[in-house]
Amino acid sequence: MEESQLSELPGVPLTLEGSCVLHQMFHFDWNAWKGVSFEQRHGIETGAVELFGRWEEGSKQEHPNQSAVFSLIGHKGDLILIHFRESFQALNQVELDLAQTAFYDYLELKHSYVSVVELGLYESSRKTWEAASAKGLEPNTPEFRAEVEASLERASAAMAPRLYPAIPEAKYLCFYPMDRLRAEAKNWYMVPFAERQRMMHEHGLIGRRYGDVVKQIISGSIGMDDWEWGVDLFAQDPVVFKKLIYEMRFDEVSAVYALFGQFFLGVRLPIENLTHWLAGKL
Amino acid sequence: MEESQLSELPGVPLTLEGSCVLHQMFHFDWNAWKGVSFEQRHGIETGAVELFGRWEEGSKQEHPNQSAVFSLIGHKGDLILIHFRESFQALNQVELDLAQTAFYDYLELKHSYVSVVELGLYESSRKTWEAASAKGLEPNTPEFRAEVEASLERASAAMAPRLYPAIPEAKYLCFYPMDRLRAEAKNWYMVPFAERQRMMHEHGLIGRRYGDVVKQIISGSIGMDDWEWGVDLFAQDPVVFKKLIYEMRFDEVSAVYALFGQFFLGVRLPIENLTHWLAGKL
Amino acid sequence: MEESQLSELPGVPLTLEGSCVLHQMFHFDWNAWKGVSFEQRHGIETGAVELFGRWEEGSKQEHPNQSAVFSLIGHKGDLILIHFRESFQALNQVELDLAQTAFYDYLELKHSYVSVVELGLYESSRKTWEAASAKGLEPNTPEFRAEVEASLERASAAMAPRLYPAIPEAKYLCFYPMDRLRAEAKNWYMVPFAERQRMMHEHGLIGRRYGDVVKQIISGSIGMDDWEWGVDLFAQDPVVFKKLIYEMRFDEVSAVYALFGQFFLGVRLPIENLTHWLAGKL
Amino acid sequence: MEESQLSELPGVPLTLEGSCVLHQMFHFDWNAWKGVSFEQRHGIETGAVELFGRWEEGSKQEHPNQSAVFSLIGHKGDLILIHFRESFQALNQVELDLAQTAFYDYLELKHSYVSVVELGLYESSRKTWEAASAKGLEPNTPEFRAEVEASLERASAAMAPRLYPAIPEAKYLCFYPMDRLRAEAKNWYMVPFAERQRMMHEHGLIGRRYGDVVKQIISGSIGMDDWEWGVDLFAQDPVVFKKLIYEMRFDEVSAVYALFGQFFLGVRLPIENLTHWLAGKL
Amino acid sequence: MEESQLSELPGVPLTLEGSCVLHQMFHFDWNAWKGVSFEQRHGIETGAVELFGRWEEGSKQEHPNQSAVFSLIGHKGDLILIHFRESFQALNQVELDLAQTAFYDYLELKHSYVSVVELGLYESSRKTWEAASAKGLEPNTPEFRAEVEASLERASAAMAPRLYPAIPEAKYLCFYPMDRLRAEAKNWYMVPFAERQRMMHEHGLIGRRYGDVVKQIISGSIGMDDWEWGVDLFAQDPVVFKKLIYEMRFDEVSAVYALFGQFFLGVRLPIENLTHWLAGKL
Repeated sequence: MEESQLSELPGVPLTLEGSCVLHQMFHFDWNAWKGVSFEQRHGIETGAVELFGRWEEGSKQEHPNQSAVFSLIGHKGDLILIHFRESFQALNQVELDLAQTAFYDYLELKHSYVSVVELGLYESSRKTWEAASAKGLEPNTPEFRAEVEASLERASAAMAPRLYPAIPEAKYLCFYPMDRLRAEAKNWYMVPFAERQRMMHEHGLIGRRYGDVVKQIISGSIGMDDWEWGVDLFAQDPVVFKKLIYEMRFDEVSAVYALFGQFFLGVRLPIENLTHWLAGKL
Repeated sequence: MEESQLSELPGVPLTLEGSCVLHQMFHFDWNAWKGVSFEQRHGIETGAVELFGRWEEGSKQEHPNQSAVFSLIGHKGDLILIHFRESFQALNQVELDLAQTAFYDYLELKHSYVSVVELGLYESSRKTWEAASAKGLEPNTPEFRAEVEASLERASAAMAPRLYPAIPEAKYLCFYPMDRLRAEAKNWYMVPFAERQRMMHEHGLIGRRYGDVVKQIISGSIGMDDWEWGVDLFAQDPVVFKKLIYEMRFDEVSAVYALFGQFFLGVRLPIENLTHWLAGKL
Repeated sequence: MEESQLSELPGVPLTLEGSCVLHQMFHFDWNAWKGVSFEQRHGIETGAVELFGRWEEGSKQEHPNQSAVFSLIGHKGDLILIHFRESFQALNQVELDLAQTAFYDYLELKHSYVSVVELGLYESSRKTWEAASAKGLEPNTPEFRAEVEASLERASAAMAPRLYPAIPEAKYLCFYPMDRLRAEAKNWYMVPFAERQRMMHEHGLIGRRYGDVVKQIISGSIGMDDWEWGVDLFAQDPVVFKKLIYEMRFDEVSAVYALFGQFFLGVRLPIENLTHWLAGKL
Repeated sequence: MEESQLSELPGVPLTLEGSCVLHQMFHFDWNAWKGVSFEQRHGIETGAVELFGRWEEGSKQEHPNQSAVFSLIGHKGDLILIHFRESFQALNQVELDLAQTAFYDYLELKHSYVSVVELGLYESSRKTWEAASAKGLEPNTPEFRAEVEASLERASAAMAPRLYPAIPEAKYLCFYPMDRLRAEAKNWYMVPFAERQRMMHEHGLIGRRYGDVVKQIISGSIGMDDWEWGVDLFAQDPVVFKKLIYEMRFDEVSAVYALFGQFFLGVRLPIENLTHWLAGKL
Repeated sequence: MEESQLSELPGVPLTLEGSCVLHQMFHFDWNAWKGVSFEQRHGIETGAVELFGRWEEGSKQEHPNQSAVFSLIGHKGDLILIHFRESFQALNQVELDLAQTAFYDYLELKHSYVSVVELGLYESSRKTWEAASAKGLEPNTPEFRAEVEASLERASAAMAPRLYPAIPEAKYLCFYPMDRLRAEAKNWYMVPFAERQRMMHEHGLIGRRYGDVVKQIISGSIGMDDWEWGVDLFAQDPVVFKKLIYEMRFDEVSAVYALFGQFFLGVRLPIENLTHWLAGKL
């Protein structure tokens, strides 16, 4: 980010961005698949597993290229693929690669979500601004902005593991997109920074209590998809998704200011089990 | 549930969870079916009935695995299948099993609903908290939380028949999902606990008056599907669905705070009658 | 209805229910039909007309089983079928019967509506309650409720022709579903009974003025379909539908509290003219 | 209209109705069409042009039966057909006639709109009522109503050219449906007549300034389709559609009380150019 | 624009219009394409590239006819084509030309957007009106209007490069439509001109700070498509789309008055790379 793009509005929280993310929700055409001979099936499965294998190679490197598969429950689709990549171009290449496989003939893309891993820095935004002010720097001067820039760069380096996360190994996935409310009397974007910070802090406390049993990855999608954020939750027991989100629904920032899109619930499908899944066994 | 996940917000009612639930609404392709020879039909029907039989075996065990079929009225589909299982993975396996049958070639999944049987404990939440306080325990201390945990475990054991219910034998089914309102001036999640408890109590009184003629199963779906709850009503006379819901629409919690999704009305189809149904006879 | 289901809330108006109703809106596949030979057409048409004939037989009996066909204008479909039956099971059998015909191969069910003929008794609710009170009976005592029950039974017998109506013979049909508003400041279900009664009375006066030229059948669909009521209007001149509904839009109960779904406009198609219609002649 | 249907509510403006109107928005199946041989194409085109020719014959008579074709821009369809007829039955016959052509095999009806040409008489409603009052007639007496009826009949005769209009010859069409707002605080149907009249008058002044470059036909669709009115604008330069509607969006009746549906923008396609269009040339 | 169409309402900002714009979002049928032989592919690709070549020729002329292709990320489609032309008729011809190619057999138009490049002149509207007043001219006199007309013509000539822009060469595209809010208490079209001007000015300052890294083209679509404006952003780094739009979401005109439609994110696909893309390589 170049200096000129740092917001001059003190109410805009600083954010850090990491991996580019694509969720793909596919319908699988069981009826067509059942008409495929065992020989053909083998070739198709091998091609799909090979592609996943190539994708997974990437995930051993420093900037992890991660892909994972989940078996979706309900009519919103049969499979959900999650991809983390270093750029949106790379995500588009993932789409094109998958489209070239014979496996793709049995897939219909019903839904997707495009976003980028995001850390919203409500607390450190304030600290950074206060530290710069404490040094006697005036807001919106080059010196002030350089100070903030430097702070952001340090934070980005320190938070690299959270900005370029591995996909957690948990058994269940819950994904949903969300917005902050902009209604006539209640408008998140018109709430003073300090109040938003307080509400986000309280919200974070709930998440932290569930930290051992639910791993969470937040991605921002303003300008990329139809909602403002995407939320991925990973857990061994999916009932804790309900416990966590229900409890959060009573905290002020969610009760008043959260709008939710569709919810997707999936069961982890390790790629080496794809052949079993294609034979109807989870 | 581990201790750390007990809400520290006194306004969040305790809940108990039981069977995992999947509703599947299918369109049946009559035009394709009518082109199937009687011999083929027999094989297809047998395969479907066998699968249902295997599912029903489960239902004789302690943790009942229940599946039931209803013939849907109207354009939202032709068949609705309800499955109760001990886990979401088991529900996903039900989907995969059904997809492997030849019967599935004539089914198109139009809609579904994913949830878990839930008992919302407004009244016992308060009693439990008061009992713990009466013992001199401070809220959000380990002792207080242990007390509440122990109470929840006792309740869960006592309510096992309602948490892992059998699907009632009634002739008609009414299913619909619902939310609690979060609007600008009227927001269920910002209403004090005592007021919510009072409204839920009054709401429950109406349901209780209909208790002899309408059996009700509530399932929670926050984090699992697009609405907060699913409601299944079972009755011999479907007009009582209208009587009950219309009357409830005048109680405060529904009049002001209930948002409803689509309504599905079905007629029970015992699996042994499937062959008749496939010949056009209910 | 058993005694225990009578509302104890004085604000819930009494209702009477009659025939079960199904609306089916079909797309007709003209392109496929044009490929059918004249011989085949004859067989298909005969099968369809026979089924309608069997349905119409019912309509000569005391509890009329009524079915009628309309040619729909616009893209919402080509045909609308209306069925009145003595039960929802019978309506489901109508669907299954139709699905078995060869005619059904050319139909695609695009929309439907499930409801039951309903008389909302705002005025007689009050009178009944007042009469019971005048006898010195206390509300919500068994005596009071028995009094009301007896009154409802007398009303039901007296209103049988309106509860089990014949489908009017008029040339045009207008069908639409509707809800009463439950918004934050304006909420029908929180309005005191007397005010609702006054508004419904004024609303009824408009309908009565159009009584000679528009026949109206109201059916309730709470718990059965996605809106609260369905409205069928029948007239020789469809412009009066607009006149009537436009005028009503200025009365308080509609202006403030009515929400409308889709409107369907159809031209009566006597079943004996089906062959003409299938040749493109109305 | 019979006397008994004249509104007794002084707030309901008088309206006059003329031609019945149907808009049909079709997707054209270019891929299938490109597979048709030149000989077959000729036959198909001839059949379509002949049908349009027969429709246009009607348009030379006194009560014009008008049909016009436009090439639609964007994904909402490829062709829009507008039909003006003397009855809704005649519009349904137009649909059936078109469905019998071979041309129809390449058309898919994506959208439509059903309405009737309407003149809303805010200004003359007031004048008529005042004139009747000036004669000493009491509102809602037979004499008062007869006076108003007679006035409406004179108006209808005088406005016949606007009630049964020819479709303007302009190069571009803009069509959209609209509603008047019925929200909690702002509700058009609860605004006193005089205020509505003032707002409609100011609204009309803008339209009049554009009168030379935009021809407008308003049709009412309450009870006939899902919005209250349809608006057809015709102009040589489509940018004036934007200028006109943008300017109107700042007048009170539109700014506060207008809700808009989808907008359709088309280029006039004289039927004699259909063969060119089918070869990809506008 | 003829004089008579200049708004007499001082609150309506002057606008200038330039190139007509069409966005086309296509699904590409990979499964069908994979069945095409290499020889056939070559012919199909050549035809598509030739058509794009002819379109690009236009773009070297004074009134640029511009077309560009982007590879879409996610399920909203696979390709997005943007066309700038001198008229809407020319845009419709673009659609017809594309439909005649063999390439079109593999495309399905899922979405589109119709608009015209627009410069909203809040600041110069005021200056122009003040200058005319300073000359002693009365608003809404022929002299005043002639003065404004002359000013608009000078502005239009001066701003021709922005009214008939070239499509920027950046690697990523972000497209979305938007509206200004017309709610009950917050209604953009009822806000006084000076306040709107102030908010638009502040909004513009943010855009200007991002001017080096994001190129923006605003097009108006009132009367042409379902939203009021379309926004095209072009950048080398798509994360700046999020930064820019997130920051703007906190300025008053966006926070309170902006409603957003779907967001589309694409990667530039130079037409000479189409063959590569069709082989699955970006």
